[in-house]
Amino acid sequence: MRLSRRYQFCASHRLHLDSLSGDENRELFGKCNNPYGHGHDYILHVSVAGEVDPETGRIVDRDVLDRIVREDVLPRIDHKDMNAAVPEFRDLNPTTENLAKVIGDWLCAAFRNRLPAGPRLSAIRLEETGRNTFDLSME
Amino acid sequence: MRLSRRYQFCASHRLHLDSLSGDENRELFGKCNNPYGHGHDYILHVSVAGEVDPETGRIVDRDVLDRIVREDVLPRIDHKDMNAAVPEFRDLNPTTENLAKVIGDWLCAAFRNRLPAGPRLSAIRLEETGRNTFDLSME
Amino acid sequence: MRLSRRYQFCASHRLHLDSLSGDENRELFGKCNNPYGHGHDYILHVSVAGEVDPETGRIVDRDVLDRIVREDVLPRIDHKDMNAAVPEFRDLNPTTENLAKVIGDWLCAAFRNRLPAGPRLSAIRLEETGRNTFDLSME
Amino acid sequence: MRLSRRYQFCASHRLHLDSLSGDENRELFGKCNNPYGHGHDYILHVSVAGEVDPETGRIVDRDVLDRIVREDVLPRIDHKDMNAAVPEFRDLNPTTENLAKVIGDWLCAAFRNRLPAGPRLSAIRLEETGRNTFDLSME
Amino acid sequence: MRLSRRYQFCASHRLHLDSLSGDENRELFGKCNNPYGHGHDYILHVSVAGEVDPETGRIVDRDVLDRIVREDVLPRIDHKDMNAAVPEFRDLNPTTENLAKVIGDWLCAAFRNRLPAGPRLSAIRLEETGRNTFDLSME
Amino acid sequence: MRLSRRYQFCASHRLHLDSLSGDENRELFGKCNNPYGHGHDYILHVSVAGEVDPETGRIVDRDVLDRIVREDVLPRIDHKDMNAAVPEFRDLNPTTENLAKVIGDWLCAAFRNRLPAGPRLSAIRLEETGRNTFDLSME
Repeated sequence: MRLSRRYQFCASHRLHLDSLSGDENRELFGKCNNPYGHGHDYILHVSVAGEVDPETGRIVDRDVLDRIVREDVLPRIDHKDMNAAVPEFRDLNPTTENLAKVIGDWLCAAFRNRLPAGPRLSAIRLEETGRNTFDLSME
Repeated sequence: MRLSRRYQFCASHRLHLDSLSGDENRELFGKCNNPYGHGHDYILHVSVAGEVDPETGRIVDRDVLDRIVREDVLPRIDHKDMNAAVPEFRDLNPTTENLAKVIGDWLCAAFRNRLPAGPRLSAIRLEETGRNTFDLSME
Repeated sequence: MRLSRRYQFCASHRLHLDSLSGDENRELFGKCNNPYGHGHDYILHVSVAGEVDPETGRIVDRDVLDRIVREDVLPRIDHKDMNAAVPEFRDLNPTTENLAKVIGDWLCAAFRNRLPAGPRLSAIRLEETGRNTFDLSME
Repeated sequence: MRLSRRYQFCASHRLHLDSLSGDENRELFGKCNNPYGHGHDYILHVSVAGEVDPETGRIVDRDVLDRIVREDVLPRIDHKDMNAAVPEFRDLNPTTENLAKVIGDWLCAAFRNRLPAGPRLSAIRLEETGRNTFDLSME
Repeated sequence: MRLSRRYQFCASHRLHLDSLSGDENRELFGKCNNPYGHGHDYILHVSVAGEVDPETGRIVDRDVLDRIVREDVLPRIDHKDMNAAVPEFRDLNPTTENLAKVIGDWLCAAFRNRLPAGPRLSAIRLEETGRNTFDLSME
Repeated sequence: MRLSRRYQFCASHRLHLDSLSGDENRELFGKCNNPYGHGHDYILHVSVAGEVDPETGRIVDRDVLDRIVREDVLPRIDHKDMNAAVPEFRDLNPTTENLAKVIGDWLCAAFRNRLPAGPRLSAIRLEETGRNTFDLSME
């Protein structure tokens, strides 16, 4: 069985490649290349798979999962400018694909530390603006 | 191809383990351990997989699927207090994980009876309060 | 201008009038009269009207509004059995109409205490199960 | 990683089999057999799987994907009467199952033409009226 | 206090004025002028205002309201082609504005018959395709 | 009758008052004061009131309304950093309250130019992050 729990955060970004000219950047990224950046509200679903504990009736303690996301993920990204304030994007374009991979790495490390014997991180889903959804399998 | 059809019901529950003290129960289950219980609206998605019938153009007759859910599932749980009025939870903590397993068992039996040669029950998804979603594969 | 802010809680209830027979109660309230009660997830929108502060650019400080709802409203109802654990419903049927009026009274008192000179409580909206919405004007 | 992008269209249809009598058609298809037809708003999710391009940070160029859907899919179905104006349904009942298969064929051909070396069409999901969702794996 | 209750139906229509040429119709109504018509899923919210009954705790009996909508409104429009099968649109363009007015008339008459002394019909809201919402005050 | 039409845009902002110290800004605006700013997806509902044209059956031509919003509103704000790239916020804190007033001014001017005799701008609603909704009456 798999539990998926939903979190929200917002951040801003600007898509831009130094290797391209201004025109090429505008052609490739459109309004996402606007100077100064712009922002989004993201929805993050974290999926945890495992057996249901016969005593508590739960796959994972919601408090532990919330602490992982609220302490090891959200403070690094929520209400931040990704280009300027998130070190992982110093040399990486902050597309939602790359954001999903970065969050996946943060969650993997946090699960190893806090739930070494526990249920496993199964997948993450990142929704951007209600039109695009990104699914990343972690298994 | 897979068809997922959506149903709703509401029920109340209280999470509590007799093997624990009052303090331990409150620590483990938080507000879900409040005396007298509390309630939720659940959304149930039933997924059916199979071939599309070349004549009718359908995987499964919606009326048959609706009868299975409306006669074999919803009357056992809808507008009920799970702890007091659902026999399956006499010795089982009514978490949403366990509720998904109980509904999965009810649906399996109903599919065997009513659709023995028909499309197969592929998965169920149970949404609790918009924040937590449980996926149970039945294949 | 009016700001409406969204909160969630869950609770259980049973609709029943002692003045009616069992059959009359079942006829009048249907499944909502089931013994032991059942529960719902409610969405509460609190609307505040007033002038935009020329300095802060806000109608109301979100933290103050959140404290009003989280300290003066939610602890009295969230994860509770209304019939058994909320004194206001000792002699009042816990329909959503009556729940809206009770929450309106709690909010009125809290606004008088905490925002005596501030923006006014304009309206509350209570959504029950996605099908029924109750609007109560407070002006 | 997989990106799913969301599109909308509306169309009308009537479910009817010439091989059945009027009564049998009404019994099998219910209100969907009403003469003259009726309509729906459909939501189409197109899922694309592949590697994240190390330079652009994207799985697929959104503009290319949008052109595929807006030029090769939507003009054939959006604001159309499926029975009368979509050749694929001349001898095929326009159920949502069959509509999903027809759209899957259109997308497959478009991906072969426009993205021969690119990311692959992974799945399509078609939502009908918020109650029924159809998933068709293309891999 | 006001209760708004939510219903759904689907229908198809074609927007066309005989007084205009084919080009003028296409210019004015765009894809909505496609021959054969196309369809939508509509969401109807019926708002009822009145006092809360001190005994039952309700503004209106949900069963009475449901019977009004399910017997006096939905059978005339649900799963229908408005141009061909709804007499009110014989000489009236079936835009959503006009559909709202027609439904408003049906509801007014039904409230006069079935709830002559009861709560009043306060407003209707009709949502078309998630992008356009029509509000019609009945007071 | 009133038609409300829905638009979306994204933008980033940072809430900050030069007249306050760093600590006071953090105390007043919380995470919204983070350096470099952050972003949101906003939903804008534009409500237009008037009579239904007896010939076309419409309150307002959707194309005219769309042109107003897409030419006179969205290019000034969509995918922009409000603090840096929107002149109206040079000396005005870019809260959603102030954003609603600025958009209201833009729409008023556009309605005067493009629909001088037509239906009137009735209200705007701005949704921020699904939790806060701002209603501004324009009548």
